[in-house]
Amino acid sequence: MATPVRRLRLGMVGGGRDAFIGSVHRHASWIEDRYELSAGALSSTPEKAKASGRDLGLPDARNYGSWQEMLEGELRLPRDERIDAVSIVTPNHLHFPVAKAFVEAGFHVICDKPLVHTSAQADELASLVEKAGTVFAVTYNYTGYPMVKQARHMVRSGAIGTIRKVIVEYNQDWLSTKLEDQGAKQAEWRTDPARSGIAGAVGDIGSHAENLVSTITGLEITELCADVTAMVPGRELDDDASILVRYRGGAKGIMLASQICAGEENAFRLRIYGDTGSLTWHQEDPNYLRYKVIGQPEQVLKRANAYLCEAARRAGTIPPGHPGGFLEAFANVYKGAALAIHAAEGGPAIDPDDPDYPTIADGVRGVRFIETVIASGRSTQKWTLFPSRG
Amino acid sequence: MATPVRRLRLGMVGGGRDAFIGSVHRHASWIEDRYELSAGALSSTPEKAKASGRDLGLPDARNYGSWQEMLEGELRLPRDERIDAVSIVTPNHLHFPVAKAFVEAGFHVICDKPLVHTSAQADELASLVEKAGTVFAVTYNYTGYPMVKQARHMVRSGAIGTIRKVIVEYNQDWLSTKLEDQGAKQAEWRTDPARSGIAGAVGDIGSHAENLVSTITGLEITELCADVTAMVPGRELDDDASILVRYRGGAKGIMLASQICAGEENAFRLRIYGDTGSLTWHQEDPNYLRYKVIGQPEQVLKRANAYLCEAARRAGTIPPGHPGGFLEAFANVYKGAALAIHAAEGGPAIDPDDPDYPTIADGVRGVRFIETVIASGRSTQKWTLFPSRG
Amino acid sequence: MATPVRRLRLGMVGGGRDAFIGSVHRHASWIEDRYELSAGALSSTPEKAKASGRDLGLPDARNYGSWQEMLEGELRLPRDERIDAVSIVTPNHLHFPVAKAFVEAGFHVICDKPLVHTSAQADELASLVEKAGTVFAVTYNYTGYPMVKQARHMVRSGAIGTIRKVIVEYNQDWLSTKLEDQGAKQAEWRTDPARSGIAGAVGDIGSHAENLVSTITGLEITELCADVTAMVPGRELDDDASILVRYRGGAKGIMLASQICAGEENAFRLRIYGDTGSLTWHQEDPNYLRYKVIGQPEQVLKRANAYLCEAARRAGTIPPGHPGGFLEAFANVYKGAALAIHAAEGGPAIDPDDPDYPTIADGVRGVRFIETVIASGRSTQKWTLFPSRG
Amino acid sequence: MATPVRRLRLGMVGGGRDAFIGSVHRHASWIEDRYELSAGALSSTPEKAKASGRDLGLPDARNYGSWQEMLEGELRLPRDERIDAVSIVTPNHLHFPVAKAFVEAGFHVICDKPLVHTSAQADELASLVEKAGTVFAVTYNYTGYPMVKQARHMVRSGAIGTIRKVIVEYNQDWLSTKLEDQGAKQAEWRTDPARSGIAGAVGDIGSHAENLVSTITGLEITELCADVTAMVPGRELDDDASILVRYRGGAKGIMLASQICAGEENAFRLRIYGDTGSLTWHQEDPNYLRYKVIGQPEQVLKRANAYLCEAARRAGTIPPGHPGGFLEAFANVYKGAALAIHAAEGGPAIDPDDPDYPTIADGVRGVRFIETVIASGRSTQKWTLFPSRG
Repeated sequence: MATPVRRLRLGMVGGGRDAFIGSVHRHASWIEDRYELSAGALSSTPEKAKASGRDLGLPDARNYGSWQEMLEGELRLPRDERIDAVSIVTPNHLHFPVAKAFVEAGFHVICDKPLVHTSAQADELASLVEKAGTVFAVTYNYTGYPMVKQARHMVRSGAIGTIRKVIVEYNQDWLSTKLEDQGAKQAEWRTDPARSGIAGAVGDIGSHAENLVSTITGLEITELCADVTAMVPGRELDDDASILVRYRGGAKGIMLASQICAGEENAFRLRIYGDTGSLTWHQEDPNYLRYKVIGQPEQVLKRANAYLCEAARRAGTIPPGHPGGFLEAFANVYKGAALAIHAAEGGPAIDPDDPDYPTIADGVRGVRFIETVIASGRSTQKWTLFPSRG
Repeated sequence: MATPVRRLRLGMVGGGRDAFIGSVHRHASWIEDRYELSAGALSSTPEKAKASGRDLGLPDARNYGSWQEMLEGELRLPRDERIDAVSIVTPNHLHFPVAKAFVEAGFHVICDKPLVHTSAQADELASLVEKAGTVFAVTYNYTGYPMVKQARHMVRSGAIGTIRKVIVEYNQDWLSTKLEDQGAKQAEWRTDPARSGIAGAVGDIGSHAENLVSTITGLEITELCADVTAMVPGRELDDDASILVRYRGGAKGIMLASQICAGEENAFRLRIYGDTGSLTWHQEDPNYLRYKVIGQPEQVLKRANAYLCEAARRAGTIPPGHPGGFLEAFANVYKGAALAIHAAEGGPAIDPDDPDYPTIADGVRGVRFIETVIASGRSTQKWTLFPSRG
Repeated sequence: MATPVRRLRLGMVGGGRDAFIGSVHRHASWIEDRYELSAGALSSTPEKAKASGRDLGLPDARNYGSWQEMLEGELRLPRDERIDAVSIVTPNHLHFPVAKAFVEAGFHVICDKPLVHTSAQADELASLVEKAGTVFAVTYNYTGYPMVKQARHMVRSGAIGTIRKVIVEYNQDWLSTKLEDQGAKQAEWRTDPARSGIAGAVGDIGSHAENLVSTITGLEITELCADVTAMVPGRELDDDASILVRYRGGAKGIMLASQICAGEENAFRLRIYGDTGSLTWHQEDPNYLRYKVIGQPEQVLKRANAYLCEAARRAGTIPPGHPGGFLEAFANVYKGAALAIHAAEGGPAIDPDDPDYPTIADGVRGVRFIETVIASGRSTQKWTLFPSRG
Repeated sequence: MATPVRRLRLGMVGGGRDAFIGSVHRHASWIEDRYELSAGALSSTPEKAKASGRDLGLPDARNYGSWQEMLEGELRLPRDERIDAVSIVTPNHLHFPVAKAFVEAGFHVICDKPLVHTSAQADELASLVEKAGTVFAVTYNYTGYPMVKQARHMVRSGAIGTIRKVIVEYNQDWLSTKLEDQGAKQAEWRTDPARSGIAGAVGDIGSHAENLVSTITGLEITELCADVTAMVPGRELDDDASILVRYRGGAKGIMLASQICAGEENAFRLRIYGDTGSLTWHQEDPNYLRYKVIGQPEQVLKRANAYLCEAARRAGTIPPGHPGGFLEAFANVYKGAALAIHAAEGGPAIDPDDPDYPTIADGVRGVRFIETVIASGRSTQKWTLFPSRG
């Protein structure tokens, strides 16, 4: 008989009024009723933080004015009342200090991507996590789609043979104009090196592209060649990048990340070509996976069917033809993290080799990717090596 | 400043272990964190009811063995502890007694469709609801999609002119074989007249088709001509129906509902042709609304864009390109009901002429539709009149 | 070694300046260089006929002022100079007298659809053709698409099991307004009973729908129930029809034909559901055939691939990915007729049971279909029997 | 009144039995009945040439054993009997000698792409054409699609603003295996440097990609960075290339050309992003042009509609919804060349600035493109300059 599972107590840093991604994280955590929002420091401005917490019905005692207060406050509570995990949904520059402090204090962490600003920070954080033995999930949310899990399964079980070519693109248009000068909060911090880091589009969405390819194929980048551009006059960080990629073993790839592709909403597409077949997936049409084998009719695999692999089926349980979407995928990351947290706390074990959520290793590799792309963009050399972990 | 809104206390009748739709209702209620599951009578078998409640973490005291116990138990609690509303997610034959009892006791109700078995029951229930002044929502969940709301707005504001033709189809394949003989619970009760009522596919999905057309266009059926079939040998209720429809004012239509269309998952499509333009929507690809005006390029309207009407934008707040899905739409029905319940309890008023959730009037009309189609199927007359409400 | 095949000498009746379909027939005949245009009576107005012939470079001697002159003129020429076949591309009312005269004179005929105005005419013509032993092709051109031939092959070889349901629709919008009052020749004659016959949309495009279903499935209609409408005020003939169909053996169907569906161009779609699988084809996207088997991924079969049946491969020889279109399909009808004509003249035989072009039998059945639909439209009885041939 | 136009007399070099593209050229020339095949030297093997000519019904006297014989033979005929133009549809290495000889003899030429092996040859040929004043068309056939002409019109009239990014891809899979070792003629010569030139996929299909972008946008490449690969072991020429492109004025681009993309048939896609809107076109779905403007619903423009530009309407005259295809587009190139030839021979003038067919200037630029990509592929420098014409 199934044991009733308690809802995990979640604290959130960032994600107050007007923030887009904080609300997504909350909805994602609620879909399966696996978490309750128990505490928050929802803005870097104490007044706004508290007002945001009141909107969400947080009790005053745990509606904190800053993440430092939250850390202190929660540590003062008995273990079975304090938050189990913290969600970090702030602009990028705060990921490192907040994550470091909570990991060191023994909390599980769910952190938005990209992980941190530099690979030095990333390595330090990874060491701390290893030492603490806590769960650290990075919300590369697109890996939560059932058909992404199916693609991973198929590639890894040889359905398309040896990979020869990977084409991944993530195109949007929301930064086609200089939105950051028009009072748009999202645009402001994402185009500001102090908060966003060394990269704009490359960090925000290029990192998703890198992660999706890696998650599905396991391919390792050996070197790359990038043309990185700030198309909108006066913008400091890149809003467009085109990258030639070479993978260990001879496969080649293209990665495109752009936020100035007029008319594109969230066009994240992946094509993987092996020597016997190929797979195509498109985030805006996420319930389908197109599978072509040379000389055979194209196949369209669809969400929630019995012919899918177990991980895909687990990730989408509402019957075929009832479309899943962005929230379902995001919720699957939260669900994967919840299972890992329960396991860490003595619940049923999960497969350590296939944790079914993006881990800190994904986060660390993502930071290296960003650094390498930006370096290549500035280089006159054709190929820039992708560093193995130090 | 936004007032924190309390989570409504929800009781659920039906929806225990192995039930499909109960789980959907729960997820839908959780997405926006507007409800908490406070009580349940989750199965008609007391042991299974209780086991299901334990799975979900219901407290023993409110994990009831039957809906009658739940009604009594909740009425014994003080008003500010007892459930605000009950969700009825049982097979059809229980809708009437459960809904009647809870409405008479003053509870708000969220009831699955079709509303009840007969129009006599429907009329009686409607009178009770009117007398009680409570909220009664019927989960015609497809009306919750943002692009359905947009279609409604466009049709009603004249974007396609005067309607001439409506083609609506809802095709599935899950009853292509005699699944009801193979231990499938869903199939068992849906093909059993005692539990499902006089109709099979016509009641289960034909009623959605009728409701979607009515919600979007406001057209009234005057007469119809149906060919109703049980294609699978030995099945008692229909699994396929094709219906010619005539609407007040001269528009004509086709309604198809089938559960034996091999290869179809949940193919619910609508096309509405006016004298100047047309709209097309497909439930399996729900984030797009195709709009054609004679002599102009086709337009594709997409979820969450600023050019949509207010109701559509409110129903899908995650940015463009982040696909919404079945759960989001279902959650919007729960959200609409929640707003209505808060309004009924003294919260902010909602527009009584446009309540943004399907009401008991939709439920009543749906039952008449089912009865008329089945009657026409048995008639040798070409046209069967659609009765106005008595 | 292949014997060089001579180009057939073609005469054309109708299809002069401003006519749409005459030009299509000529292009279709030229694509494979199997015909040359040797004579013409291209309009019912002698001056326009001759001017049209001069446009096309017809020699004066064979640029006739009327079809009667053409018949006489050609019969005066020696056999090896006179036309082999005549294409009849006039408005419908002229099909019968012209076809009758040329068949009786021993010419092969390629005639546009619908064949003639009445089933009495159709039967008479069929008898004459049988007596003459000549080739008589009816340009149900959509049967010429490679993927239609593939669908026929698959249905007939059991790929979808026993057919249960057929949905065929042919929707256009070009008669959404009263175009016939605005000097549009096509619209004028197609809406005029004297020239078009008893039916409008039902004759023009409904007949294509009937023919496509019959060609692919071989199903025989036993009875039908039609709602036939002239939606545009003041129009005499139908511009919209919705038809419930029953086939011998228990399959059921829907046929829609409309010329007032705003925004539709030439939306001719077919879905065939068997008890194990289904096929979907859409004329506006003609190079794909979607094949679904219950419980398996959808398959998309594509033109010109080696996995297709022989007839499909023969009908589309340009490699995969090089889209075929309307002209290619039309040309395949002309090619089928050319092969039959060469066979009739002593060339290589063709399979008499599978002639690979629409024959007079298709034409005759099409006329019966039109008559039955119109009769049903006027009837208060639910079902109107489809007559077997007299 | 329209003057009857005589059919041009066409000679063909190459394109005999088993050749793919020769047959396409012939069909394309026949569609509008503007050409007749009057002479041929259809293979480099005299016996095969003559057998092929007999298949096509060429008279013995003009069914030549070699192109040299054809040149001599035709020159011996009186002017009004000899061919007007020669189609060169041989493997690439013969383009130069044949084209040179026929141009010098005063014939019009229609030559397959890529034009010749080297830019020295290209420049020499261009000079000869200029001196001769004859028509020289290069069959970049994809420019013949109506919606390509519409895209060109829209880009040039500012519909998408200033171009920022161009993504063009041409992916196939027919060389995924070492087909050249299995007796496939096409594969043999296309992978053989002696016949194909320095490039494989880059020359065969990359050149189409370059030409399409140039035709539609007018953008000039200033420098590029290519990763050029022979993926199939043992193959000498490239079968895969990924190219970063920079255009004069700051736009950036990606060009992909691959013949090892498993499951792709002829996937030639173009996306052009301006600062206000974008256009998308896909060769396998050629009758649609997708047009997005920031903040507005996507528009889908469709072939043959009155809202298209004149060149697009001229290129597709069969009504909307009747799909055009590969042959129609190819025929439009032949039609454009025919109009130019008639103009050169004293017929109605054409617009010299917009000749509506690909000229020798396109051919010359294409050869430079191939040379630059191959040079970049071998370079360790990031950017290789694209040479302006010498």
